[in-house]
Amino acid sequence: MSRPTETITILGAGAMGSALAIPAADNGHEVRLWGTWLDDGLLDAVERGHPHPRTGIPLDPRVKTYRSGQLAEALDGATYVVLAVASDGLVDVLRKAAGHLRAEQVLAVTTKGFVRLGDRILLLPDAVTSVLHEAAPDGGPDLELVAIGGPCKANEVAARRPTAAVHASASADVTERSRDLFATEFYAVESSDDLIGVEVAAALKNVYAIALGICQGLAEHGGEPYHDLQAAAFARAVSEMVRLAGLLGGRPETVAGLAGVGDLEVTALSGRNRVYGTRIGAGETPDEALRAMQAADQTVEGVPAAKLARELVDQLIRFGALGDWSGLPLLRQIADLLGGQEPYTGVGDLAGAIARAALPVRSPAGR
Amino acid sequence: MSRPTETITILGAGAMGSALAIPAADNGHEVRLWGTWLDDGLLDAVERGHPHPRTGIPLDPRVKTYRSGQLAEALDGATYVVLAVASDGLVDVLRKAAGHLRAEQVLAVTTKGFVRLGDRILLLPDAVTSVLHEAAPDGGPDLELVAIGGPCKANEVAARRPTAAVHASASADVTERSRDLFATEFYAVESSDDLIGVEVAAALKNVYAIALGICQGLAEHGGEPYHDLQAAAFARAVSEMVRLAGLLGGRPETVAGLAGVGDLEVTALSGRNRVYGTRIGAGETPDEALRAMQAADQTVEGVPAAKLARELVDQLIRFGALGDWSGLPLLRQIADLLGGQEPYTGVGDLAGAIARAALPVRSPAGR
Repeated sequence: MSRPTETITILGAGAMGSALAIPAADNGHEVRLWGTWLDDGLLDAVERGHPHPRTGIPLDPRVKTYRSGQLAEALDGATYVVLAVASDGLVDVLRKAAGHLRAEQVLAVTTKGFVRLGDRILLLPDAVTSVLHEAAPDGGPDLELVAIGGPCKANEVAARRPTAAVHASASADVTERSRDLFATEFYAVESSDDLIGVEVAAALKNVYAIALGICQGLAEHGGEPYHDLQAAAFARAVSEMVRLAGLLGGRPETVAGLAGVGDLEVTALSGRNRVYGTRIGAGETPDEALRAMQAADQTVEGVPAAKLARELVDQLIRFGALGDWSGLPLLRQIADLLGGQEPYTGVGDLAGAIARAALPVRSPAGR
Repeated sequence: MSRPTETITILGAGAMGSALAIPAADNGHEVRLWGTWLDDGLLDAVERGHPHPRTGIPLDPRVKTYRSGQLAEALDGATYVVLAVASDGLVDVLRKAAGHLRAEQVLAVTTKGFVRLGDRILLLPDAVTSVLHEAAPDGGPDLELVAIGGPCKANEVAARRPTAAVHASASADVTERSRDLFATEFYAVESSDDLIGVEVAAALKNVYAIALGICQGLAEHGGEPYHDLQAAAFARAVSEMVRLAGLLGGRPETVAGLAGVGDLEVTALSGRNRVYGTRIGAGETPDEALRAMQAADQTVEGVPAAKLARELVDQLIRFGALGDWSGLPLLRQIADLLGGQEPYTGVGDLAGAIARAALPVRSPAGR
């Protein structure tokens, strides 16, 4: 690497924030990990050299930690900033950070999902830009944004097991720089200019992983695997992500690659959205399953994402960008099931409901 | 359904042949199941009303069985013929059947893989046409061919669990007819005109499923999951199938749909290719793993498919359709590993080998 050493500030000391610190530190950069007001317990642990409570891996000792009150200090002199907070903390953290960000900084975002601002549902980069401008009414800094997606479980990144991410930005210089900063033997980086494709796939994969988890849970319930149904639902999910990304300006190749197919695969292999779906497939109602997850302090990002995706599609229909829901039957089915729009009639009908939504139908009507 | 009842003859009484008899019989058609000289034991069982030894599901009593000596009788008056024999029996069965096939029949093929005829590697539909012409030197019957792909485990089809197949043919009338014959509430059929895309994906998915199985096995070996690597390899597999299908005249959407993504997902969830890969990932050498599978009477179709795929790519390079192997690093890695072109250096390097092949690299060289 011929690139100079940079100062990288990661906002959010949870699983992904602390994990991303590893490849950046491995590349010799100065890495600062700032924890929100909810992250004190996590920082207490890693500062004592204990494993990070969310990844099970100790923080690299080269990484400097900053507490929530030290935001200005953490950002001062940073050349590259990573926003790695949970989706529901994103707006708050951004508002607090806005006054300390400068136009020459790059702002990368690992947070996934759609964001509601006022009565609009926005993709994450649009939401970030909007919050920054609102926080600094004189215009605010126009940072270059990078969307980070792809199949990256934080615990595997932190453990230096092989992982591939997609770093997407409108500027080829910025994606190249982002790749140089983070890419290691274990953390491979694919460059892309399709921020929208990366973000749409990143947001929706949690919703579809719930559907795939349900298929896995059906086997626990009835003792017989539903592998065909899971695989057909996987293919259907990809086709719907292609459709929705296309409507918003993203490209099919992005969804067919690491950011869509790859991230959906890893999300269906492990993680909280899969577990939540498995519980439903095994016989719990969606509400029971969610309460059980909440009791174990496990947030299920696919649940609010399904609700926001539903509102986003309704918004697209209202604006005339989409005629109706007919190209997105699986998304609608999952959103209806989780949101209560469709009365839950028991696990006995779940396979049929997913099949009706995910499998090709005999007539083109409704698809 | 307004279509008339047809007479469907299925050649091959193994798992897939006996399974496909179910939706056809459910639709009220006359279904004949012909067993090869290797299928007598299977037919003995199902004729006594026992479960089919390969699917665990009894044959529908409406299905008539025919022994290997009754090929002419089984085909006489059939309007739709399904070739559902194992790939290594395909040419033999086709040669025997050729004299009894007629031009007005449709010939559907569930057999998967590439076929070596002389010194050429052919896709299955080309091989079928070639064998039929060779068997009847006056020209032979020009049957309409249908390629059947998609995520269909025979045992799930036979058990009437929801499944989606792709039926592809050059003729829209034929695909529509094929869908009408087989589509049920449980066996959904998507029509396609992209035979090549379906066949390339069907042949290659067994090879890539071995790679995904290796990633699963690594967790058994080391106790730590390699979900990110598996997901990145999945996305890489899809991108390589798109590339190879495109070179041969198939379309990306086919590979991104049920026939590619869907079939790869189900093959990675279960089946012999996955099991074989898992054994390698868990520490057996490729040879040891293959001997163990053979000892359990489990053929691993991905092993010969990897060899044939390697020869096919070399053939494409020789013919100038492809510059070099650079767009297919994962296929090459798996073919080298299984074929001994790369010395096996132990399970310790497997994650690295798959990562080097499947993960994006920092420079475009070699990709």
